[in-house]
Amino acid sequence: MRIIVDAMGGDNAPDEVVKGCLEALSVNKQVEIELVGDRKKIEKCLKNCSYDASRLFITDAREEITNNDVPTEAIKKKQNSSIVIGLKKMKNKEGDAFISAGSTGALLAGSLLITGRMKGVHRPALAPVVPSEGGRNTMIIDAGMNTQVKPINYMQFGIMGAEYMKHMFGLESPRVGLVNVGTEEKKGNHQLHQAYQLLKNSNLNFIGNVEGRDITDGKVDVAVCDGLTGNAMLKVMEGTGRFFMDYLKRIYSMSLASKISFLMVRHELKKLKKQIDPEEVGGTPILGVNGIIYKCHGNSKAKAFKNTILKACSSACVTVLEQIRNIFAKMDLGGAYDEAL
Amino acid sequence: MRIIVDAMGGDNAPDEVVKGCLEALSVNKQVEIELVGDRKKIEKCLKNCSYDASRLFITDAREEITNNDVPTEAIKKKQNSSIVIGLKKMKNKEGDAFISAGSTGALLAGSLLITGRMKGVHRPALAPVVPSEGGRNTMIIDAGMNTQVKPINYMQFGIMGAEYMKHMFGLESPRVGLVNVGTEEKKGNHQLHQAYQLLKNSNLNFIGNVEGRDITDGKVDVAVCDGLTGNAMLKVMEGTGRFFMDYLKRIYSMSLASKISFLMVRHELKKLKKQIDPEEVGGTPILGVNGIIYKCHGNSKAKAFKNTILKACSSACVTVLEQIRNIFAKMDLGGAYDEAL
Repeated sequence: MRIIVDAMGGDNAPDEVVKGCLEALSVNKQVEIELVGDRKKIEKCLKNCSYDASRLFITDAREEITNNDVPTEAIKKKQNSSIVIGLKKMKNKEGDAFISAGSTGALLAGSLLITGRMKGVHRPALAPVVPSEGGRNTMIIDAGMNTQVKPINYMQFGIMGAEYMKHMFGLESPRVGLVNVGTEEKKGNHQLHQAYQLLKNSNLNFIGNVEGRDITDGKVDVAVCDGLTGNAMLKVMEGTGRFFMDYLKRIYSMSLASKISFLMVRHELKKLKKQIDPEEVGGTPILGVNGIIYKCHGNSKAKAFKNTILKACSSACVTVLEQIRNIFAKMDLGGAYDEAL
Repeated sequence: MRIIVDAMGGDNAPDEVVKGCLEALSVNKQVEIELVGDRKKIEKCLKNCSYDASRLFITDAREEITNNDVPTEAIKKKQNSSIVIGLKKMKNKEGDAFISAGSTGALLAGSLLITGRMKGVHRPALAPVVPSEGGRNTMIIDAGMNTQVKPINYMQFGIMGAEYMKHMFGLESPRVGLVNVGTEEKKGNHQLHQAYQLLKNSNLNFIGNVEGRDITDGKVDVAVCDGLTGNAMLKVMEGTGRFFMDYLKRIYSMSLASKISFLMVRHELKKLKKQIDPEEVGGTPILGVNGIIYKCHGNSKAKAFKNTILKACSSACVTVLEQIRNIFAKMDLGGAYDEAL
């Protein structure tokens, strides 16, 4: 498999991107990596590094899409940016997956305009997986791609999310829930009622309405919602997590006594950090497009890039893509679904 | 001031409700409290307690609204429930505020059907205040009352929220932000764009779009959103907070060494707990109705009830009510606002 990586995206590019790629190459002895970006800068990072050069490629890309660019315009105009070149390569089957820590808006726009929606998928989605109670993981889908959704979108999010969690996390029958203001069936607005019915009548293991805390409690494996709700939940979780970790860091450095205290529980705190560390989790997949695309956090470091590459080239990831493709190609879009369009 | 309290609402009623009321009576030597609920059960809780009996009243209420009742139906049919009796008493000016830890749906329905919207307010809102970085506090409004909103609602939420934060937290010019999928002005759907413009053109200290983490980072004082987004954020924050506190509790009880290490940081961890403890924060106000109403968490104990009563009878709270009433009575609802209706 060949993974195409945006060498210029994110706050720590290209150094940490390159470092992460080299780490991935040393862990996985089959994967090939193609770095897209400023060739001179990439080569400078590679100087004096030892790696299997037969599996690392560089494609030059001189333009840059910034967070200030209007995403759809940038995708159309900056043809020489790493995101556009990378996505086009994947579209032309010159690569199996694309990873970027660059502009989220541009990557989402590119995934629609260049990679394109899978047949039968109405709206692709950004689908982060967050840690939850008991060492579990829960997907929030959609978490920012669609701020206007219809009932059928919720159902499709559920299907795509369930396939991902099934194959990437080994869950036999992922529990799918609909994020709502309460768990009773009649909660929420008319659109949520319709979505509820579609999910209930599908083949999914639909557990009904769920609330935000069911996600952190690990009571649901795929939490379905519109992009605004999902994005807000995700950002608040990140913020709350950081609030706690910062507080702990502060109190543990306050005095000699507190530093000693830290040493005694250091091992367990390290386990906690590992569980919630975005660097461990790696990038977020975009589901429902004709390719494997992962969005890495803007402040990703080498570990995150390494872990994302390893995810993207796993056989499970390929299975997810194929399964989603098969399901949606076969799906009967008549009847209740059409009404909901 | 007389505060009417639902003695039967919540998991720990009536014992903890009564206990909280007595604690409030001993702190505030002027407030009067009227407990509404099963008289026999209330009197049993009061047995052998010492308190100023001239300031505590009991009104009998034998029906109970449960979380399984359909809220609007329950409000109409269960005329002898503590929520209906309590809200009617406030409407008849037999009390200045109403507090309940009972069914949220019923309290929200009752606040609309019995208490009624303030003149000029299109949609009242549930407005929790959450702790944020640096010892600050941020309001999320709306957090569950309205799952269908229009641009004007966002603006009104901003106005009501700003008044509350101004007087209850002493903020001279509360920063109001619109929860969105990113901070750039053009983010989100058409409705959010319209809401953005209304907020921008208002007299509020509108800081633009904010993301979930700006709430936990304390970068905004009033985060405006629809009820589903707000409720989801709130529940996820609660869940994440609990996730961390449970983890810390676990690791500190693992061994003798860890228990000793806990003693070294106990004071600081206690401060953290106090900052995020819902018992300290107390109830959530419903803004935009003709009265002071606070919803307490279902698992509230005495401290939460005490703190909520003290909030409800504060002069700041009365000022909030009066200010919101004045602002909305004067507000010109023509022009841009009418278009957005």
